[in-house]
Amino acid sequence: MLSKIILASKSPRRKELLTQIGIEYECIVSDAEEIISETEPDKVVCRLSEEKAMAVAENFDFSAVEDIVIFIGADTVVARNGKILGKPVDEDDAVNMLMELQGNEHQVYTGVCLLVYKEDKLIDRISFAECTRVFMYEAAEEDIRVYVESGEPMDKAGAYGIQGLGAVLVEKIDGDYNNVVGLPIGRINREIKKYL
Amino acid sequence: MLSKIILASKSPRRKELLTQIGIEYECIVSDAEEIISETEPDKVVCRLSEEKAMAVAENFDFSAVEDIVIFIGADTVVARNGKILGKPVDEDDAVNMLMELQGNEHQVYTGVCLLVYKEDKLIDRISFAECTRVFMYEAAEEDIRVYVESGEPMDKAGAYGIQGLGAVLVEKIDGDYNNVVGLPIGRINREIKKYL
Repeated sequence: MLSKIILASKSPRRKELLTQIGIEYECIVSDAEEIISETEPDKVVCRLSEEKAMAVAENFDFSAVEDIVIFIGADTVVARNGKILGKPVDEDDAVNMLMELQGNEHQVYTGVCLLVYKEDKLIDRISFAECTRVFMYEAAEEDIRVYVESGEPMDKAGAYGIQGLGAVLVEKIDGDYNNVVGLPIGRINREIKKYL
Repeated sequence: MLSKIILASKSPRRKELLTQIGIEYECIVSDAEEIISETEPDKVVCRLSEEKAMAVAENFDFSAVEDIVIFIGADTVVARNGKILGKPVDEDDAVNMLMELQGNEHQVYTGVCLLVYKEDKLIDRISFAECTRVFMYEAAEEDIRVYVESGEPMDKAGAYGIQGLGAVLVEKIDGDYNNVVGLPIGRINREIKKYL
């Protein structure tokens, strides 16, 4: 059976995670604007991941005769006390976010939308949000500034990368680690295996 | 102040973790035999990590005038119901271990020993065992055999690599992820920063 996985995300970390577990995929991203009305973290990430997957599926050329095509959309946010922290706008914003996260617990939500097509017909749609609790060590503003100056926080929700230098900020997690990196690949692997 | 970190382990995963957080180190390993009388997982890994660090420190040439030298020894085991699972001896052993771990919780213990020398005098010795709880999905023996045939399990305690293909076996963890990979770098970073 010919099948194809399309990752509707340009995040290098999501690409690495699919590669890590040996899944072959193609990466296609759309420039769909992300405008939503939800405010709760789990609903926000579900909605945004659906929009990303749909925008790519709608413009996909199904004529290249695959049997099953699965589009994967994903979106990750950090939440603290119900407030969503996205990507920092500048270095001061990054420092402020990390000062709020240090010494405390926060939650990382990744929404995943899988659109399963057989030829050009949508036959299934799986949507879920996975939550991981992250507990950070206490950290001094001086140390946080040094970390921010590394540049690593700037393209990351919550202003840190757990898979990079940011690892030293994290004391422990409760949940799926790869969900914090940006893709809950254990759960995704189980879902897509049903169709391949 | 001139200082030096010596990693007394040849594990590529431990090397990668130190590199990830930007720590410069040198890798020196000894061929010390690992003979111990402990049987409890936390004591076993503490003792083995101490032996590894001591074996390297004892043969180190301190005349190359560093101020502070820190030797890092580490050892990781997987435990289930109090029984220690080391590295599998062959593929069948790996399958048996993973059949025991699938669908269940187990614990990963990494023992760390930091020997801190000022010139050639031991000035501090930090020893701890970090425990992370790992929860695996249920998995069929057929799928486990496919994983074992990848070769990944053969050099790993508990017969899986959470940072590789083995990621898909793991549902969630409670604790430090890098401790499962082989080195609790957050805690180690905090300890060694006091001396650098």
